[in-house]
Amino acid sequence: MFDITRYATAAQSVIDAGRFLYGRGWSPATSSNYSARIDAEHIAITVSGRHKGELAAADVMVVDLAGNPVQSDCRSSAETRLHTVLYELFPDVGAVLHTHSVKATVLSRLLPPGRALTLTDYELQKAFSGITTHESTVTVPVFDNTQDIDALAEDTRQWFRAHPEQPGYLIRGHGLYTWGKTMADCLRHIEAFEFLFECELETMRVRP
Amino acid sequence: MFDITRYATAAQSVIDAGRFLYGRGWSPATSSNYSARIDAEHIAITVSGRHKGELAAADVMVVDLAGNPVQSDCRSSAETRLHTVLYELFPDVGAVLHTHSVKATVLSRLLPPGRALTLTDYELQKAFSGITTHESTVTVPVFDNTQDIDALAEDTRQWFRAHPEQPGYLIRGHGLYTWGKTMADCLRHIEAFEFLFECELETMRVRP
Amino acid sequence: MFDITRYATAAQSVIDAGRFLYGRGWSPATSSNYSARIDAEHIAITVSGRHKGELAAADVMVVDLAGNPVQSDCRSSAETRLHTVLYELFPDVGAVLHTHSVKATVLSRLLPPGRALTLTDYELQKAFSGITTHESTVTVPVFDNTQDIDALAEDTRQWFRAHPEQPGYLIRGHGLYTWGKTMADCLRHIEAFEFLFECELETMRVRP
Amino acid sequence: MFDITRYATAAQSVIDAGRFLYGRGWSPATSSNYSARIDAEHIAITVSGRHKGELAAADVMVVDLAGNPVQSDCRSSAETRLHTVLYELFPDVGAVLHTHSVKATVLSRLLPPGRALTLTDYELQKAFSGITTHESTVTVPVFDNTQDIDALAEDTRQWFRAHPEQPGYLIRGHGLYTWGKTMADCLRHIEAFEFLFECELETMRVRP
Repeated sequence: MFDITRYATAAQSVIDAGRFLYGRGWSPATSSNYSARIDAEHIAITVSGRHKGELAAADVMVVDLAGNPVQSDCRSSAETRLHTVLYELFPDVGAVLHTHSVKATVLSRLLPPGRALTLTDYELQKAFSGITTHESTVTVPVFDNTQDIDALAEDTRQWFRAHPEQPGYLIRGHGLYTWGKTMADCLRHIEAFEFLFECELETMRVRP
Repeated sequence: MFDITRYATAAQSVIDAGRFLYGRGWSPATSSNYSARIDAEHIAITVSGRHKGELAAADVMVVDLAGNPVQSDCRSSAETRLHTVLYELFPDVGAVLHTHSVKATVLSRLLPPGRALTLTDYELQKAFSGITTHESTVTVPVFDNTQDIDALAEDTRQWFRAHPEQPGYLIRGHGLYTWGKTMADCLRHIEAFEFLFECELETMRVRP
Repeated sequence: MFDITRYATAAQSVIDAGRFLYGRGWSPATSSNYSARIDAEHIAITVSGRHKGELAAADVMVVDLAGNPVQSDCRSSAETRLHTVLYELFPDVGAVLHTHSVKATVLSRLLPPGRALTLTDYELQKAFSGITTHESTVTVPVFDNTQDIDALAEDTRQWFRAHPEQPGYLIRGHGLYTWGKTMADCLRHIEAFEFLFECELETMRVRP
Repeated sequence: MFDITRYATAAQSVIDAGRFLYGRGWSPATSSNYSARIDAEHIAITVSGRHKGELAAADVMVVDLAGNPVQSDCRSSAETRLHTVLYELFPDVGAVLHTHSVKATVLSRLLPPGRALTLTDYELQKAFSGITTHESTVTVPVFDNTQDIDALAEDTRQWFRAHPEQPGYLIRGHGLYTWGKTMADCLRHIEAFEFLFECELETMRVRP
């Protein structure tokens, strides 16, 4: 059982994030899914297939860390396991956001298979928690898209157990996953990633 | 005769769609036309030449499936037949939207004559009704622009009778047509198409 | 002497146009100037150097067709003569808008000296008054930028006396002039021009 | 000691600037810092690490010209010295804004080390205070990014003592600094710079 006020607060943070992210064009056409931690065992997460700019209370449900619905007949995203694996791995993570922007989609398709995106010498890297200088490298792994979510969840678990300091990953032709201690941290990470993706694409346009 | 409440509901969905689509920049300079089904015989459709971000009740009229005005002295778009042919062909279609975005216009002009746009390996393809995996191909035929709308209507009718699972088409240098069971489905299709068009153009910029 | 209600109506149309055009990013940093006809002899026009997104009644003044202030101590733009020459030439013109967008600026600098921009096979050309098919050509002359406004005004007068059906012109590295019978027509022309400029630039990016 | 009404007015101008600049996308992910002069000795400046679109009274503090907090336990940005050096050098400067746009970031990284950005033949150069013709050159020096802010502050001090007529500078991979007699002047400079950066990048895309 979970505390109902903690659930309501987590659900509201998901609803508010949706309005912001849809407004930016990063969650079009009912794509994306968002979650926030309720407690050590429970996660508030978007119901599958809803309009992310118009989320209401009935569009957020509760799942446990195995991804099973709790006190709900709704179905969460097929990608729920990609969220819960991060909450398991990082006990201090409070929010996970998955978005589908044009920049993330295009950049992930342009990178050669097997190569991560590396970001360096950008002042904005300091927006990621724990980074204090532009003289650092942010490594964003790009996983191949798949309909086998369990396998992908396991791949991400292994990669981030080995690289816990990295703030997010891409799925090719699909989108971005990032997380943070609070929803505000997580939204700051998204803004930073989208900024950096746009910088990389702008640069590739001029120096292909 | 048609039910007046069904007319009012259909007209309102057209008005609301206009505010959204103009706001996105996809219906500039009085371009575009939109419609919604009232019943098996009647369609609510925009009056020709109106500002799509400022549609009011008087800017939506009724036509029958042959495109003739019903209980109205107004003139609908010269392209009305492109709408009605889709309602005839697909009895479960409830809304048809035609938009004029920069991306759709440019992309349709860049494709070689006779070649369709094909979209594959994008997660967002799942936003189209009936598509459940990114490992599919969305084919968007590009028809040459013409002032002979009856001929174009017949071309589209034949193409989509043969490919009923495809969700839309382009007219070269002109714009996009797409449809859905409900107005919400149709708007989701537009968002998905515009997202994918932008991805394709971004990619062509970097890899011309 | 001019009718005060006609002045107030013209001034309000200028103020409203400013809010729209600044919001679109087409009149940044106090650039641009707008006017609307009061009567055969008088024009309402923006006072020089004002923030175009925050125009108020005191930011619009009256000039005669020679560009002299009427009942005002304010100074209108140095480019006032570029407005009045159009009102002289075309008695049915009711509004003239001059904007500074990124697209108009860049495109006008990329075109070789002496060459006009020609637009053809775009459906959106029909947004210009008097054009009824995409199988037409819109010719947009590009004048070199200069601080000698009287000379430029004379150049534009001669060009448009010879080509009265064309809807606007560019000044290199500077911006767009367009006009219409009403302010609504003029704003539709701006939207159409900006759409077409963006199409042309997008195309040049992919096919340099 | 400083006048409290002058402090409150300066702080409010900083808060309002933040809402505008974040809304434009020029201060994402808690980046950027802004300041306004209170008097000859005191500056109102943003507290480090705050969300620039949601600034409130508690997010603006006071520092002296050496960058030390006055009547405050808060910490201002590590870059405070880059602000105060400008207030020292130019007694008539009333506001300094530092922003992090995609265009400024990309352009500063594309320019070869040691080369300034030069802007010429743009009408919009007249938006900078003191420039009256497009036949002028705006020179924007690009300093290398560093964590040694004191050294960078000294570099900027020397460069602008030698070139007091120039309106701003870039830090590579980091952002823009500009200033003005009033906050309105400073915001006009930002709009002009961002416009010109976008023009330069658009041009580089087409003519790499």
